[in-house]
Amino acid sequence: MLTLLQRSFILLPLTLAIGLSGMSAHADDTPSTAKESDPQVMGWMQGFPPSDDKLISQPSSDFFSFPKLRWSVCHMRELLPTTEVSRGIGAPSSLDYALDKNIDALTFIPTGSKKSMTWQQSLDANYTDGIMVMHHGKVVYERQNGCLNELGNHAAMSMTKSLTGLLAETLVTEGKLDDSALVGSIIPELKDSGFGDATVRQVMDMTTALDYSEEYDDPDSDIWKYAKASNPLPKPDDYDGPEGYFEYLQTVKKKGTHGAEFNYRTINSDAIGWVIARTTGKSVDELLSERIWQKMGAEQSAYMTVDSKGTPFAGGGVSAGLHDMARIGDLMLNKGQINGKRLFPSAVVDHIQAGGIKDIFAKSGYDELKNGDYKSFWWLFNNPTPVYAARGVHGQTIYVDPAADMVIVRFASHPESSNPKIDPTSLPAYSALANYLIRK
Amino acid sequence: MLTLLQRSFILLPLTLAIGLSGMSAHADDTPSTAKESDPQVMGWMQGFPPSDDKLISQPSSDFFSFPKLRWSVCHMRELLPTTEVSRGIGAPSSLDYALDKNIDALTFIPTGSKKSMTWQQSLDANYTDGIMVMHHGKVVYERQNGCLNELGNHAAMSMTKSLTGLLAETLVTEGKLDDSALVGSIIPELKDSGFGDATVRQVMDMTTALDYSEEYDDPDSDIWKYAKASNPLPKPDDYDGPEGYFEYLQTVKKKGTHGAEFNYRTINSDAIGWVIARTTGKSVDELLSERIWQKMGAEQSAYMTVDSKGTPFAGGGVSAGLHDMARIGDLMLNKGQINGKRLFPSAVVDHIQAGGIKDIFAKSGYDELKNGDYKSFWWLFNNPTPVYAARGVHGQTIYVDPAADMVIVRFASHPESSNPKIDPTSLPAYSALANYLIRK
Repeated sequence: MLTLLQRSFILLPLTLAIGLSGMSAHADDTPSTAKESDPQVMGWMQGFPPSDDKLISQPSSDFFSFPKLRWSVCHMRELLPTTEVSRGIGAPSSLDYALDKNIDALTFIPTGSKKSMTWQQSLDANYTDGIMVMHHGKVVYERQNGCLNELGNHAAMSMTKSLTGLLAETLVTEGKLDDSALVGSIIPELKDSGFGDATVRQVMDMTTALDYSEEYDDPDSDIWKYAKASNPLPKPDDYDGPEGYFEYLQTVKKKGTHGAEFNYRTINSDAIGWVIARTTGKSVDELLSERIWQKMGAEQSAYMTVDSKGTPFAGGGVSAGLHDMARIGDLMLNKGQINGKRLFPSAVVDHIQAGGIKDIFAKSGYDELKNGDYKSFWWLFNNPTPVYAARGVHGQTIYVDPAADMVIVRFASHPESSNPKIDPTSLPAYSALANYLIRK
Repeated sequence: MLTLLQRSFILLPLTLAIGLSGMSAHADDTPSTAKESDPQVMGWMQGFPPSDDKLISQPSSDFFSFPKLRWSVCHMRELLPTTEVSRGIGAPSSLDYALDKNIDALTFIPTGSKKSMTWQQSLDANYTDGIMVMHHGKVVYERQNGCLNELGNHAAMSMTKSLTGLLAETLVTEGKLDDSALVGSIIPELKDSGFGDATVRQVMDMTTALDYSEEYDDPDSDIWKYAKASNPLPKPDDYDGPEGYFEYLQTVKKKGTHGAEFNYRTINSDAIGWVIARTTGKSVDELLSERIWQKMGAEQSAYMTVDSKGTPFAGGGVSAGLHDMARIGDLMLNKGQINGKRLFPSAVVDHIQAGGIKDIFAKSGYDELKNGDYKSFWWLFNNPTPVYAARGVHGQTIYVDPAADMVIVRFASHPESSNPKIDPTSLPAYSALANYLIRK
């Protein structure tokens, strides 16, 4: 039996990385609906102080269980130490609106279903907290509800990886980072680890061969050691394992041949976070602020959770406003330009769009992503024309569709962490919307 | 011998409330100078990851000891859970500058000294991280250094109390809060506590008679129980004390007669935080955002540390940017108006300036504050003309001098927590500057 402190100690960052969560079930074991589980309806954290049955607090195994996670995704900083991704102190850029009231009634057939669904129905089906659609550079659709409003931030989960990848790809394109270099040559501390003889590119594309298990039922699984190491709360006195993301990465051994298989592992993103920091002298949060947040006209500062050494969680720690994530999508769609300013070379997006591990990716079982590929922590697939996306557990996405000149950004708090379970009511909706906007 | 977790558990919020800190001493026991202890010079948290001798982390007894506190005052959110005091998403107001290069050379005689000091020398004497002077509504002087820059935030420490008091005094002036009401009639949970039969006014002016000790050498002192209760980190399994600020306040008993003595106790501010929340349905952080931060043209969102129930620390938890604290000072000087907008009735500042417990205050031993008074968590005194101020340990101040039409805002990280030890090189400097500006 673990004590409260031990449980909290173990589980904290894991939930952020992989979205392990419990479920609030009906008698028939289906989770409560979006409306039933709305955090306002549930009354989470209402009252001064909240009563015990309305309280959301540590440990993370509790605060990140459904339906509590529907509140927690907007309140990570109230539960964990964080570092600011500053927007600077200037005026934000304005967003142009050309709202289209017809979008709610658009219909599509969810994958594997025979019954059509409207766009509006899909929002609750996906436990959507916020969604924005930009077309030809204007906002044509926006909803913020659940725990989110325009002054709020929402956990981006693994979309954080794509921001980290964007920074790394920018450094590669600018010639400041050689993606063919071995990681051990850039980070001597990783020379003897499994990362040591992997190229930067292999880490950026998650084709590293690492002895790293994510078996949640096995208490000796590596994911638990990673979770312990990266927990920002003080460690028990008898803890003698690695402290923080970077110390943990040094303990990972090689298993197999780099470049042979695609294995989606968060530790690759944290390794690239270290490469970025060592290359630029700036941590991911600082560089994200300098390169992107301060320059794109962001409305709000974003933030990142940190480990006990202040290292930001490059694999999953960002929280941000919906409007600012839409600006990121717009920036990606327009290959580095926003508000008439260029933030990074267009070749950065060209490189991401080009992919590079299609054959390897095809063997990895992501069957719902047609003609799939993965590059610099961005997902590429056809829906039915080529799109690229940032994706995070529980339904987070930045979805860029160049053929439709469309960006969709969604924050969600789906009871299921796994996106393949959310895609059936998402990807066909996005495709239907693209078709509608193209023909409009 | 306490374990690491226990030490962290006990000390965390205490340091914020009362600024308990160690000292980095020279061989002769004088602390290192401002230049020697500059966090950049010390190299705190530099490197990826920082080496052990450059690391600042939990427990708070370590991170808030001098000279580490010189870094920590700008990084509270990286060490603790926090809640945002949102600035909103509009454009910030511009600050008008009319910098005066003569100010650095102004001289004054520090209290109790025979040797004059220049204004510029006073900055390092006071371990100043940031200072701004506004005169006739324009910035005539500004320095940001140490851990601070214009994108950074700095712990306001007990200046937080004055922001809480400003909100409460606003509610009183608007007729939404009756300051003659007994606290127990507003907060039934406090009816049987020492606060129960105190008036709101007595709590706002710290004339409550409470059985509450701040004896730091006594492990049974109430301050330690308060610190334990309000620590946001998970409690040990065997902890059976109060959880959070509001539960702790219920345990405080009465001792003596309310209204008879001035006793500066942080728990009064947290009690008013509760009164504000119960009266308005909004917590202090929310109300501070709605009433002040979103309306004064703030450049940055501020933030507040929270307990394990998400309750913001109304007695000491705010961190904010220097420019925004100057806006607060400007707002106080101009009695609720800023940028041509009225944020609260001018009577709010009239009430504060009027004081009300001068006779009681005179017996409390704050001899350095001439003709002193205290009202709604603001300090009033003559220097030599009437001024009012927010003050926080380690040298924080918002100093409003109506006669000189001047506001001084200072963030600092002095090795001494106690302001009476910092006032000798501060108050005469402020007086000299006022004299200079009036005659200019």
